[in-house]
Amino acid sequence: MQQSDNLSAVLFKKGDLRLVQTPIPSKPGNNEVLLATQSVGICGSDVHYWVEGRIGSYVVNEPIIMGHETSATVVEVGEGVQHLKPGDRVAIEPGVPCRKCNHCKVGKYNLCANIFFHATPPDNGTLTRYFKHAADFCFKLPDNVSFEEGALLEPLSVAVYACKRAGVTIGSNVLICGAGPIGLVSLLASKAFGASRVCITDINEKRLQTAKDLGADCILNVINIKNTNEIVDCVKQCFGRSPDITIECSGAEASIKLAILATESGGCVQLVGMGPSEVTVPLLSACCREVDIRGIFRYRNSYPQALELVASGKVNVKPLITHRFTLEETLKAFETAKNGEGIKVMINCAKN
Amino acid sequence: MQQSDNLSAVLFKKGDLRLVQTPIPSKPGNNEVLLATQSVGICGSDVHYWVEGRIGSYVVNEPIIMGHETSATVVEVGEGVQHLKPGDRVAIEPGVPCRKCNHCKVGKYNLCANIFFHATPPDNGTLTRYFKHAADFCFKLPDNVSFEEGALLEPLSVAVYACKRAGVTIGSNVLICGAGPIGLVSLLASKAFGASRVCITDINEKRLQTAKDLGADCILNVINIKNTNEIVDCVKQCFGRSPDITIECSGAEASIKLAILATESGGCVQLVGMGPSEVTVPLLSACCREVDIRGIFRYRNSYPQALELVASGKVNVKPLITHRFTLEETLKAFETAKNGEGIKVMINCAKN
Amino acid sequence: MQQSDNLSAVLFKKGDLRLVQTPIPSKPGNNEVLLATQSVGICGSDVHYWVEGRIGSYVVNEPIIMGHETSATVVEVGEGVQHLKPGDRVAIEPGVPCRKCNHCKVGKYNLCANIFFHATPPDNGTLTRYFKHAADFCFKLPDNVSFEEGALLEPLSVAVYACKRAGVTIGSNVLICGAGPIGLVSLLASKAFGASRVCITDINEKRLQTAKDLGADCILNVINIKNTNEIVDCVKQCFGRSPDITIECSGAEASIKLAILATESGGCVQLVGMGPSEVTVPLLSACCREVDIRGIFRYRNSYPQALELVASGKVNVKPLITHRFTLEETLKAFETAKNGEGIKVMINCAKN
Amino acid sequence: MQQSDNLSAVLFKKGDLRLVQTPIPSKPGNNEVLLATQSVGICGSDVHYWVEGRIGSYVVNEPIIMGHETSATVVEVGEGVQHLKPGDRVAIEPGVPCRKCNHCKVGKYNLCANIFFHATPPDNGTLTRYFKHAADFCFKLPDNVSFEEGALLEPLSVAVYACKRAGVTIGSNVLICGAGPIGLVSLLASKAFGASRVCITDINEKRLQTAKDLGADCILNVINIKNTNEIVDCVKQCFGRSPDITIECSGAEASIKLAILATESGGCVQLVGMGPSEVTVPLLSACCREVDIRGIFRYRNSYPQALELVASGKVNVKPLITHRFTLEETLKAFETAKNGEGIKVMINCAKN
Repeated sequence: MQQSDNLSAVLFKKGDLRLVQTPIPSKPGNNEVLLATQSVGICGSDVHYWVEGRIGSYVVNEPIIMGHETSATVVEVGEGVQHLKPGDRVAIEPGVPCRKCNHCKVGKYNLCANIFFHATPPDNGTLTRYFKHAADFCFKLPDNVSFEEGALLEPLSVAVYACKRAGVTIGSNVLICGAGPIGLVSLLASKAFGASRVCITDINEKRLQTAKDLGADCILNVINIKNTNEIVDCVKQCFGRSPDITIECSGAEASIKLAILATESGGCVQLVGMGPSEVTVPLLSACCREVDIRGIFRYRNSYPQALELVASGKVNVKPLITHRFTLEETLKAFETAKNGEGIKVMINCAKN
Repeated sequence: MQQSDNLSAVLFKKGDLRLVQTPIPSKPGNNEVLLATQSVGICGSDVHYWVEGRIGSYVVNEPIIMGHETSATVVEVGEGVQHLKPGDRVAIEPGVPCRKCNHCKVGKYNLCANIFFHATPPDNGTLTRYFKHAADFCFKLPDNVSFEEGALLEPLSVAVYACKRAGVTIGSNVLICGAGPIGLVSLLASKAFGASRVCITDINEKRLQTAKDLGADCILNVINIKNTNEIVDCVKQCFGRSPDITIECSGAEASIKLAILATESGGCVQLVGMGPSEVTVPLLSACCREVDIRGIFRYRNSYPQALELVASGKVNVKPLITHRFTLEETLKAFETAKNGEGIKVMINCAKN
Repeated sequence: MQQSDNLSAVLFKKGDLRLVQTPIPSKPGNNEVLLATQSVGICGSDVHYWVEGRIGSYVVNEPIIMGHETSATVVEVGEGVQHLKPGDRVAIEPGVPCRKCNHCKVGKYNLCANIFFHATPPDNGTLTRYFKHAADFCFKLPDNVSFEEGALLEPLSVAVYACKRAGVTIGSNVLICGAGPIGLVSLLASKAFGASRVCITDINEKRLQTAKDLGADCILNVINIKNTNEIVDCVKQCFGRSPDITIECSGAEASIKLAILATESGGCVQLVGMGPSEVTVPLLSACCREVDIRGIFRYRNSYPQALELVASGKVNVKPLITHRFTLEETLKAFETAKNGEGIKVMINCAKN
Repeated sequence: MQQSDNLSAVLFKKGDLRLVQTPIPSKPGNNEVLLATQSVGICGSDVHYWVEGRIGSYVVNEPIIMGHETSATVVEVGEGVQHLKPGDRVAIEPGVPCRKCNHCKVGKYNLCANIFFHATPPDNGTLTRYFKHAADFCFKLPDNVSFEEGALLEPLSVAVYACKRAGVTIGSNVLICGAGPIGLVSLLASKAFGASRVCITDINEKRLQTAKDLGADCILNVINIKNTNEIVDCVKQCFGRSPDITIECSGAEASIKLAILATESGGCVQLVGMGPSEVTVPLLSACCREVDIRGIFRYRNSYPQALELVASGKVNVKPLITHRFTLEETLKAFETAKNGEGIKVMINCAKN
């Protein structure tokens, strides 16, 4: 191997994102692989760290490489790695848990307190030429899945996990609040899990049109509807009844209220979007109608299904990509993502 | 049968509870039994209807007989009733669902929109000499279970259902917020379901002492602790870690906040207490740590287990009874319950 | 109403199936509807009663009207029926449970010991002009679902229920043993529930070709493979690994053996086919590899999803129909079904 | 550390168990601890390896140290070990999985194909003075739990896991087939999980008396009852109905038949005992009554609950110990276990 360049997009501190050379990773150890980054999607959290320097208790105190929606090519495999070989194309599940705590042992490894996760301070991300990763969190891509699709498995895994936690299945009526990238992949995943009808809300007409194009049965622009009960009525009209499940992807207080009030008794509000730390919500209605409120933290055991959805053609994530940049153009890419013009901004990290 | 007296405690309107004669029920129909009331416990909701004339959207528009925590003696059985005969002593599950809607068919009959429920307007309750009920919602009491214990199966069913929904099992660390009657039965039920440690909070020292006497491993008076994080720390000290499950029985906003923040990642906040329609809560913390928030509406399929707990001696509900009255003394009983002096006020409805 | 004809296909005793006039049903009672039969599919059990006079402990001691895979038109509605009106086209879920026993209350109504079920002795079936049924077990068909498809919801419900019990979902590798009508609807349902690959076995090449045409990813003729382990190897080759779930639709001992040995550790063998009362099987392997063995008895709460699958076009059951007869030709229809030439034999019961 | 003696009970081949010196383990690595063995219980599998040289596909091809029901004292801790320190008393969960395969990731680590498991060929066991183990599979014993009780957590974990898989809870009626060590701990665990009544069968009156002493509500000697249906009737008499759950601990064909036929519709047969590779059983009855058949392979995530049961006094395993030997007396201990005179034979491995 002749790795000499390891250009990386490093966030030095709030607002200070720069392309610099970082050390090329050493040889992969047991169960590790050395990877050459291919595609990296920009996530809202990446932009948030750049703009704010923190998300909740995760603070950028030290320089950190950004990026966690990643596909790559295997360069070298460490000891004990059997399912991968140099040249393999892979999607990267960005979190590697401790494997020893109680959460890990019961299969809830996403709740592991000692999980390593790309581009969550202080863990470096993948907007770089080369990085190492645990082999068992690298998923081999079949030939018909592109590197860009591989990178998009990350947000799709969020949606897959949300659908599983919420119990979306054949015949489910699903309300999705928010038509941003996560709302849109939740729409795609809900349909793939068998949802009968999906209604999606937003305050941005363009996003709603995209949702419509991607298969939403009903779109609802709530920008001019001030009263939550009025929106609830609109939602019921969309479905001809109340939705069984609401996947809340906006994090907005008004939207969480809607989610609780619109969902059918015995149903589920699946919280995915992250908003203010406290919200004022009609918990009594949720309680008395047994509408469960469930959050998700990233995902667990969802990459295989996300890959299956894309590889089988059940889900087409390609239309989500609206902008493409090279690693060298990372700042421009972040600016584009920040401006919220498109849906998904993709960075090609391969050196040509 | 020589029923000539049917003295009943009728709430005519807000504040207007009177003992009057009501018609003796006609012969029991198919799957029905005619019952002679024995013990009726007074529930917070009974008092609430009396004082406020309503609970949420349930409004006392017509005179209504109060009472729903009930034991009785079978007087006459209707066609098709096989498991009961005149003279049998029974506990009454007060809700009889439509049996035909989707909620009923999937076993979630407590969510049936057309459920009949004693003393929920406009359905009459059991503070009367005689009433009819669906035979399959009457549970035969073994000799070692008293009528008072039979009446107490109703609040115990709430606790049993809460424990089942929350997943209390061997080794669970359970935080209970609120040491009122429901908090106390939740304590008893949690222990019976195998909880390792139960910590209970309240602002009333006397209630907390009762909880201690009933088996709480740790009691926590939160009256002088203003900061929620401080209480969270106290809770963690009680358990030596975070509780897996919190059963919130107070309905108070501060308490729901505590419940969310104190519960371990991947755990569950079980909402039982009913408070204001909207509350300001740290939903983001619940979401990001996958602390599920689940409500319960009454109970379903829990009477058999509540009866088993009492009949087997695994739970002793007798200490909960602090006051006893006759049907004729109903107003005094309601006054006592309203004053909150004791825990459970019991009315003996049998004519002597 | 001018019902004067009630031609019915009555099985008098083993081998003695005749078309006779039976009484036109009386007016529908509470929650009942009077129905004019449209399409009735012939099930293996119908033929079995005809040929053997019994299935297990269900014996034809009295004359009984055959038929239970049914669609119909509403003629008259009884008291309390709100979701149906005369003229509505409906699919009939043939079992009506007692609604009062413990199984009913917990939502497992198919296990109700007192369930009424069309054409299971001594309950009359639907191969007749008119019959009454519980309104809540009649499912209104949208315009794009034909009467024949409505009748086919019955076997499809079996498959839907099997997939739900077995946990078929996105990415499941499903082995189906037996390519008869139930095997084929299980194939269709598995695909609809998101199965990644479905491999189906049989000893009849024509059936396997039909399975291939209906979407099986892999077909396996096991007629000449004597050794079970050899078949297990073939199955693993089909999937590139072991199947997560096996839906056993043949009832044959050899096939159940295959199901147990082929299924991945931690997976599930879903028994659907009915065979001899005792079988010799490698239970130790199932035990030590935690391969759960689950049976199904008919179905519960599955009609809505079966209808959704057909109405949405996710499942196309039309190709299953290979033969059509009128009610008057019932005997010919039974002969055809007995000969096993086609897949599904459909009887049109409407009078023209 | 001055370890110079590492006397070990090595099974060289079928029938050839000898005490020899084996190398003292090297320093513990990352997440490892070096342990001084205290108590080791003899399991039926230990005896089976000794007598037969194999269990199924596990064959003693190389000399192997026996023993896997173990408690120990921590001698030295490796890097990264935080919850243990030298001198700590611990119970050993004997299986350490690969932590990387799909089974491990979803929390079903007991199904890991690459699990290390004490005394399962070719992995060495704990009948030795010193051994190393993964720190996270060592559970610290509180002062009130003895070393012998610590060793007994292993069989108790089997029972705990069986109860969890089978869903034993408040009010369950549980039939246990077989009153050997595993049947007896299943009895204790069932009671602790809230079982209402436990009936236990065996053909050995002495074992049944022990079961009675340990809390069985009903014992049933089936030695002279030839007809399974007759035994089913006796079981129903014990419970006054059919048991919800049967835990089959004998592995005998007749007993599995009984388990299937006796269990209530919708219930569960939990297979724990290991018998012949093929058995002839009434699978049709299980299928048509939806009696699920579930096996268990060892246990997962059950040690903490087993420890809780013993530490809290909810379960008293001490009466199970009938014989005690020193490590030097291992052969005598194995002879005693083989003769089946007592229940649990315990070996003290500490050097005095």
